[in-house]
Amino acid sequence: MQETFKKWVEIPTRWIDMDPMGHVNSATYHTYFEIARMEYFDTVGLHALKVPGKLGPAVVSQSCNYRRQIFHPAHLRVGIRCTEIRNRTWGLEYAILVNGEPTPYADGSTVMAWVDYEQAKAVPLPEPLRESMRAYEEKAL
Amino acid sequence: MQETFKKWVEIPTRWIDMDPMGHVNSATYHTYFEIARMEYFDTVGLHALKVPGKLGPAVVSQSCNYRRQIFHPAHLRVGIRCTEIRNRTWGLEYAILVNGEPTPYADGSTVMAWVDYEQAKAVPLPEPLRESMRAYEEKAL
Amino acid sequence: MQETFKKWVEIPTRWIDMDPMGHVNSATYHTYFEIARMEYFDTVGLHALKVPGKLGPAVVSQSCNYRRQIFHPAHLRVGIRCTEIRNRTWGLEYAILVNGEPTPYADGSTVMAWVDYEQAKAVPLPEPLRESMRAYEEKAL
Amino acid sequence: MQETFKKWVEIPTRWIDMDPMGHVNSATYHTYFEIARMEYFDTVGLHALKVPGKLGPAVVSQSCNYRRQIFHPAHLRVGIRCTEIRNRTWGLEYAILVNGEPTPYADGSTVMAWVDYEQAKAVPLPEPLRESMRAYEEKAL
Repeated sequence: MQETFKKWVEIPTRWIDMDPMGHVNSATYHTYFEIARMEYFDTVGLHALKVPGKLGPAVVSQSCNYRRQIFHPAHLRVGIRCTEIRNRTWGLEYAILVNGEPTPYADGSTVMAWVDYEQAKAVPLPEPLRESMRAYEEKAL
Repeated sequence: MQETFKKWVEIPTRWIDMDPMGHVNSATYHTYFEIARMEYFDTVGLHALKVPGKLGPAVVSQSCNYRRQIFHPAHLRVGIRCTEIRNRTWGLEYAILVNGEPTPYADGSTVMAWVDYEQAKAVPLPEPLRESMRAYEEKAL
Repeated sequence: MQETFKKWVEIPTRWIDMDPMGHVNSATYHTYFEIARMEYFDTVGLHALKVPGKLGPAVVSQSCNYRRQIFHPAHLRVGIRCTEIRNRTWGLEYAILVNGEPTPYADGSTVMAWVDYEQAKAVPLPEPLRESMRAYEEKAL
Repeated sequence: MQETFKKWVEIPTRWIDMDPMGHVNSATYHTYFEIARMEYFDTVGLHALKVPGKLGPAVVSQSCNYRRQIFHPAHLRVGIRCTEIRNRTWGLEYAILVNGEPTPYADGSTVMAWVDYEQAKAVPLPEPLRESMRAYEEKAL
């Protein structure tokens, strides 16, 4: 698991992440993915390529597999990587490790698009973004 | 769309559902699904079959397709239905309609399991739950 | 109570408003106040007076008195009114009614300021905002 | 500030803590207070004195003074202390420091009660809780 992802993001849980069932709410896992995604975007320089209100990233679809319940307090490490780059979209994958245990408590994936917000349609990814994700992942994506 | 789902749940958006991008946050769609799911469970009598701390439902996986941005204030109608019943798990599908428009702004699906919480493993669905979902959906699921 | 507030905002609770204690979380009451405040601002035409990124409202302080626990599902009616207008700040009061019961489950208050965001300091309220709040409340505030 | 509080709790902000205004939402400050409170309760042994569903703490009132906007990403240190112990209630105070700056971005206070949940009324604080808070604060509270 440690080698599958180059980028790991540390997240302490919050008590309020839990719902009335007494475990972390299922929607909150998507927030954990978002926290990791934002830091990944920072790492690959995506934020600098955005044109506020005009061009930037959008979530096309996202899924999560819940393998074990998470209880607060826990120290999470969320692995994130880019798995595929297409013309207007790219794919991300995640795994959530809990308190140093080796087996993920959850994993998931996102399809992202590069979007012209005004026209509400996907447009080709900026070349520097492709390059920086390929360079970061050290792979021909 | 109206006929695809028998159960529709009305949800007014909240301003805080939006994130710094100025649209409803991607994790919040999963909360909308959860609101619909809780009402569906109520409709098919699931809550009465739970044994607190021992037996009940758990989310196995959940995905969402984001087709259009949602902005507050909006009046949402979330359609939900059971699409499949297996031995220990069952499938749900959702669509989110916005302000009376006919085309969904998002759709998604969940795999649910009936779980023995103490043993942390899926167990067969209670027969009355199978029956009530089949009866409600008027289908051989 | 009904006559104390002219403006009432209807809010259905959400299951996730509850925390692991099984009741609505204390921070969520502040979100209920915010929902009411946003609608009140709409009613008195505040939003039209904002200059994005330059001039607009800011919360100076906010308090809540928790009188009874709220459990989902509940239908809330939040009363909101302007109680005082000063040079650069104004005061709001709230009460939360639950399921048609006459006694508030919570009440609270906010001090708002009109703020020059770039200089990070309070500036005098726009005259039209003073006038519209006085007119709406039918009082010399 | 450093000496005012003995207990400090570290909180990294999350992107979603911010609202469409682009700063940390006002209700979220109350969540930061809650995170600190939970850790304080742990420190003074409160959690061990609870009788689930019967006896435990409840928030009576809570206020926050917002002195400066907080933007993600930020590293927060929340100071918390017990300022007063009465028969059935006690008082807490908080300050939020941001990125190592000496002046608080926010401060606030809570009145807590020890509550018989079934009778929905405040009852005298357990003597061990009084003692442990006095001992921790090194004061005659």
